Amino acid sequence: MGNREWGRRTGCISFFPHSLLPTPQSPITMIIGRIIGNVVATRKDPRLEGKKLLLVRPITLTGEDESSYLVAIDTVGAGFREKVLVVSGSSARMADGLKDRPVDAAIVGIIDTVEVTD
Amino acid sequence: MGNREWGRRTGCISFFPHSLLPTPQSPITMIIGRIIGNVVATRKDPRLEGKKLLLVRPITLTGEDESSYLVAIDTVGAGFREKVLVVSGSSARMADGLKDRPVDAAIVGIIDTVEVTD
Amino acid sequence: MGNREWGRRTGCISFFPHSLLPTPQSPITMIIGRIIGNVVATRKDPRLEGKKLLLVRPITLTGEDESSYLVAIDTVGAGFREKVLVVSGSSARMADGLKDRPVDAAIVGIIDTVEVTD
Amino acid sequence: MGNREWGRRTGCISFFPHSLLPTPQSPITMIIGRIIGNVVATRKDPRLEGKKLLLVRPITLTGEDESSYLVAIDTVGAGFREKVLVVSGSSARMADGLKDRPVDAAIVGIIDTVEVTD
Amino acid sequence: MGNREWGRRTGCISFFPHSLLPTPQSPITMIIGRIIGNVVATRKDPRLEGKKLLLVRPITLTGEDESSYLVAIDTVGAGFREKVLVVSGSSARMADGLKDRPVDAAIVGIIDTVEVTD
Repeated sequence: MGNREWGRRTGCISFFPHSLLPTPQSPITMIIGRIIGNVVATRKDPRLEGKKLLLVRPITLTGEDESSYLVAIDTVGAGFREKVLVVSGSSARMADGLKDRPVDAAIVGIIDTVEVTD
Repeated sequence: MGNREWGRRTGCISFFPHSLLPTPQSPITMIIGRIIGNVVATRKDPRLEGKKLLLVRPITLTGEDESSYLVAIDTVGAGFREKVLVVSGSSARMADGLKDRPVDAAIVGIIDTVEVTD
Repeated sequence: MGNREWGRRTGCISFFPHSLLPTPQSPITMIIGRIIGNVVATRKDPRLEGKKLLLVRPITLTGEDESSYLVAIDTVGAGFREKVLVVSGSSARMADGLKDRPVDAAIVGIIDTVEVTD
Repeated sequence: MGNREWGRRTGCISFFPHSLLPTPQSPITMIIGRIIGNVVATRKDPRLEGKKLLLVRPITLTGEDESSYLVAIDTVGAGFREKVLVVSGSSARMADGLKDRPVDAAIVGIIDTVEVTD
Repeated sequence: MGNREWGRRTGCISFFPHSLLPTPQSPITMIIGRIIGNVVATRKDPRLEGKKLLLVRPITLTGEDESSYLVAIDTVGAGFREKVLVVSGSSARMADGLKDRPVDAAIVGIIDTVEVTD
């Protein structure tokens, strides 16, 4: 498996004929973030009752904060400053206790380590 | 839980060998915004009848306006200038009264406070 | 409700201790656009037959064109140059006549006015 | 319909009181692209078997290539260099033969013409 | 099929009357990435148990790394440094063994070659 060559193949019409610009699509997926705060909303959708709204800042692979933030529902009992795994979109509703609720981001794991073998 | 170390682990092949560029993926999730106006559309999908279309501007954690805007359906009786929680995508259809409707953003809470313990 | 203070609350550990960078997450939601053209595709998915593919340019709150464009299915009989409400993602399939069709953007309303009370 | 005025309405509290910044939300929707290549993956999810993975480059309304690219499943027998309509997200699974498959982009039409009446 | 002309059609009101800005919408779709590491999370959603969380860096069509990263669940037994196909959003839950799980990115194929006939 480690021997697969990139772009090596016999009989192709044309092969990387010129340098293509480096902008592939980036999917919007599970991210690693750090809990930085919380949001209090007394008046809200009944299906959000009892759910903890946390503020999460995406972090880099070296553990540094990004400038953006997001609001996510905690489903694993995460604490302030902890590194967490956040799932978004319809997948957030698959998290524990969030079925059919109007939430699009959920904390689904507390991260112990991030290994980069790059 | 407060003692978890970032990236600390025995027996890893390689550990953060070089500084990785700081651009993790940002999910598109619940945001905090401020109501700045409304949209009137007489001719529309029958399933949008009776629904209030509000203009929301995303805000920063310090309460400042972003330049972007979005259109969201109000489901909690939010008023002008109020800070609100907006859920988007298929999750918007989980909000009160929006089941199976062609809406992809819903106001699901009125925000009282935002605490940042950063 | 108009009296809610932003970030005011007693007994918080820490409160906006330093200026946070202004990049909250922006959801991808209903937008306001202007119809600028159409797309003709003879060979297409059978479930797209009879559906009108329009070109829409997102517009600003002051009615100016954005440079981007998108392709959306018309479901309300919108005409060229009209300002319309576009819903995207799985919610587009909730629009009139688009159930289970391979479309991810639908025009669901014709906009009469946009009021900004900012 | 052609007579609808933008932002004209009697009795509004405030009307476009100051120039708003031009950054409305851009939905992620059907795009027009050009087929530039293909991807070969022998080991893959069983539900991807027999599906053709094509490389598509988004194009502008004047037919010029964008620098980004995406991978999409062909469902209409599109050929290299052809202009195609690509649908993404859960809507891609509504395309012919893609039900319940792990694909999030599908080619659903071959574009004949793009008319801009801007 | 190779003879289709772009924008050629008789009887159109107006045809590309002026150069339009080159910013079409980019969908968020299947991408090609390279596995660069993994994430360990002991405390997590029960439905994530036994699932391998890998770090993936999107790559360009010439095989170069992007600066961004994403977390995806492996479903095909991919190894470090391998080039993989990543599907995101609700489509990730269609991958082998991920039904109804809170995941929004899945590795669904190992890439052998990428041919660009541009």
